Amino acid sequence: MINHSIVFTLILTLILSLFISNSALSQSKIDSLSLIKYTNVAEQIVSSALSERKGYEMLRNLCRIGPRLSGSKNSLIALNWAKNKMKELGFDTVWLQPVIVPHWERGNIEEAILLDSDNKPLRRLNILALGGSIGTPSNGITAKVIEVNSFEELKERKDEANGKIVFFSRPINQSNLSTFTGYSNAADQRVYGAIEAAKYGGVGAIVRSLTTRYDNVPHTGMMSYVDSLPKVPAATIGYLDADFLSEAIKGNPNIKIKLTLDCVTQPDVKSYNVIGEIRGEEFPDEIILVGGHIDSWDVGDGAHDDGAGCVQSIEVLDIFKRLNITPKRTLRTVLFINEETGLTGAKEYAAFADSSKQTHLAAIESDRGAFTPLGFSVDTDSIALIEKLNSWLPLLRKAGIIWIKKGGSGADISQIKNIILPMGYVPDSQRYFDLHHSPNDVFEEVHPREFELGSAAIAIMVYLLSEEGI
Amino acid sequence: MINHSIVFTLILTLILSLFISNSALSQSKIDSLSLIKYTNVAEQIVSSALSERKGYEMLRNLCRIGPRLSGSKNSLIALNWAKNKMKELGFDTVWLQPVIVPHWERGNIEEAILLDSDNKPLRRLNILALGGSIGTPSNGITAKVIEVNSFEELKERKDEANGKIVFFSRPINQSNLSTFTGYSNAADQRVYGAIEAAKYGGVGAIVRSLTTRYDNVPHTGMMSYVDSLPKVPAATIGYLDADFLSEAIKGNPNIKIKLTLDCVTQPDVKSYNVIGEIRGEEFPDEIILVGGHIDSWDVGDGAHDDGAGCVQSIEVLDIFKRLNITPKRTLRTVLFINEETGLTGAKEYAAFADSSKQTHLAAIESDRGAFTPLGFSVDTDSIALIEKLNSWLPLLRKAGIIWIKKGGSGADISQIKNIILPMGYVPDSQRYFDLHHSPNDVFEEVHPREFELGSAAIAIMVYLLSEEGI
Repeated sequence: MINHSIVFTLILTLILSLFISNSALSQSKIDSLSLIKYTNVAEQIVSSALSERKGYEMLRNLCRIGPRLSGSKNSLIALNWAKNKMKELGFDTVWLQPVIVPHWERGNIEEAILLDSDNKPLRRLNILALGGSIGTPSNGITAKVIEVNSFEELKERKDEANGKIVFFSRPINQSNLSTFTGYSNAADQRVYGAIEAAKYGGVGAIVRSLTTRYDNVPHTGMMSYVDSLPKVPAATIGYLDADFLSEAIKGNPNIKIKLTLDCVTQPDVKSYNVIGEIRGEEFPDEIILVGGHIDSWDVGDGAHDDGAGCVQSIEVLDIFKRLNITPKRTLRTVLFINEETGLTGAKEYAAFADSSKQTHLAAIESDRGAFTPLGFSVDTDSIALIEKLNSWLPLLRKAGIIWIKKGGSGADISQIKNIILPMGYVPDSQRYFDLHHSPNDVFEEVHPREFELGSAAIAIMVYLLSEEGI
Repeated sequence: MINHSIVFTLILTLILSLFISNSALSQSKIDSLSLIKYTNVAEQIVSSALSERKGYEMLRNLCRIGPRLSGSKNSLIALNWAKNKMKELGFDTVWLQPVIVPHWERGNIEEAILLDSDNKPLRRLNILALGGSIGTPSNGITAKVIEVNSFEELKERKDEANGKIVFFSRPINQSNLSTFTGYSNAADQRVYGAIEAAKYGGVGAIVRSLTTRYDNVPHTGMMSYVDSLPKVPAATIGYLDADFLSEAIKGNPNIKIKLTLDCVTQPDVKSYNVIGEIRGEEFPDEIILVGGHIDSWDVGDGAHDDGAGCVQSIEVLDIFKRLNITPKRTLRTVLFINEETGLTGAKEYAAFADSSKQTHLAAIESDRGAFTPLGFSVDTDSIALIEKLNSWLPLLRKAGIIWIKKGGSGADISQIKNIILPMGYVPDSQRYFDLHHSPNDVFEEVHPREFELGSAAIAIMVYLLSEEGI
């Protein structure tokens, strides 16, 4: 009897606790009346984005300005274009936030000539100086070349490196589903190659382009120096020419490269983050931020990186305008300057946000290209919050979003401390590194439907955050 | 006391039933030792496909043959290429199955001239005859044009149609996530347009191309006649020229089109399905089929439709070869002839399969382009089977597969009655109808990683089906 009672009580407790946890879960879910409304809005968002292609046409205009390296004249033209566009679209407030940015210039001479042992020119190699590199003397540097696949190999062969140009030759490993994995595992060569070369007496660094497309288009990007070592010039070389160079060295270890760069770092200059917002009706001090970076590399159009993210961030707010939705919370588009060359725009905005009395409820960064939507990566430890966002998947799926999971958000918004939910928008990654940081990254490589689905996916997420809070 | 007992028993039953249903579920799951092995194999499959790009290079070769319309010389060259390729790759058995196919030829003259009311030529319009269309008299047909957006509109305006060319102008509606939705809702115009035109005395049909890319490239495809009505010539017109024509008619309802086509249907000819297999070690009479259709339209390369599906179907078996995996069950590649113009290849194979003593355990059709993998659509009513396949998702996800759900399989394999699991491989659809049935569908539009992930996704599914059965 007692036994039965105890067992019964235990079972009852167990069942009750199941019911309680279920009801706690269902509390986080959308009530059925709202669900009908949200479904309707989500469908309108997708339909408007896909059939009007308004953001795509904005991106065409932005790309016509040309590349937008921080500190360049073009970057200021683009900033002003974005400011005027947000005003024209009727955002409540649009402003520029001053930011100091570096000002590196590629210059006009950028040449790598392969020479045989007798200094006879064999072939011109397809290169681009890496961002931040020093130039060479005006008559270039001429040196033998050592090819290595890793910093470990360079260390082991350090006696051979002295006086030579170090050629970092390890390609992106393409064997993973996500191209970001391969990119991350090869990017050390571009970022730290000049430092590692200098450590062992190397006089320059040439890095195989970080690309998933086997063409001869070089992919640039940021590189670093340290004060404790000599600064040596650094360039990236097209994938096919990297193969050619590798074969040439195997054929004749005494071949040389004559490298001439007249790139130069000018003094820092003033630039701006571009910020525009639509004020929330019920909770104007709760901010939902969407953003990308308005600077790009100085080759191509910066179409995917990150013109697309910027225009999606503008279009998300415009979608509220064209569907006549007044948001409950304040929606803010932030176009950060200088993501590529130092994140000073992100830091400046973070200083402003962290000292503000307004709460940054959520921030979504779009900086992985404008391909078919996959998911949102959320930088939080709260399982409850991630579960809540997951309960919205049936709505987000209308724009192709398939998952929401814990992960990093983005380089710009992760500078802000005062955000509850930092998120990264994650599209398909298969074609991104074909284009990234290269002359391939042009408007024509952006597909209108893939781009617009990104705007729609972010707009649905922002709409739900604005309506439901967190 | 009695009350307590009853409640207690009820609760116990409830809990026991929960346990039982859980254990039933877990029985369908993979045991943990196998899971380690399968994970390892799935990773090897993805890595081999993505880093070797062997299928992609095969597709390059197939596309070099040119388009492969059923009954054409090229289609026979392609069949033989595929047969030889499977032999070269060491498949156990490779054979050709005879099939009678239609033989329609586009001919050399294909012209639509817009004329003003005085028969003065205004402009040449970009057209392609639809597959199966009759030709015109050698001096063409000249007639006024009526533009309609639907068969309903044509019926309402039937008195205006007599003696005119009917211009079916409704574009694909792009407002949905899946482009197949928009395509399906517009394809009636291409398939039945000539019949509907003839019903009301129309003398020809011109159909706006079924495309999601707003260029001027016409997209062809199959059309039908019925014996009870006159046969009128039918062509498709580029999207931009469809817009132009629409404006021109609004400006002057008396403009005419002079349409000249010398396409012709020749007598049926003999062709072949290409079949190759690797015999299973444990259950050789249980077949797992992978297939696509080797015929294509007669423009472009038929790269996505369906060169890619054919080569993926070959590469899946080759992946077993290169990873030295002996399958438990028999794997069979079937390249069907004549999917585009009548499905006689599919019907011939189905007759063979349905009369065979071997069991077709599963068949996977790849005929939706070679884009980033999304899922498998399974044509079964068995929830248990779909649940079982869903339990494999952690392995399939390594190639990007995100869902498995009930749905159609594919035009070719759905002719076979004797299959337990007919499935369709479903990649992302955003770019498919930019290319489908048009000169745009060339090898250069196939992305190597997207293509190879498809091979890998199907190979993992086939591997699990072969190891685990169903």
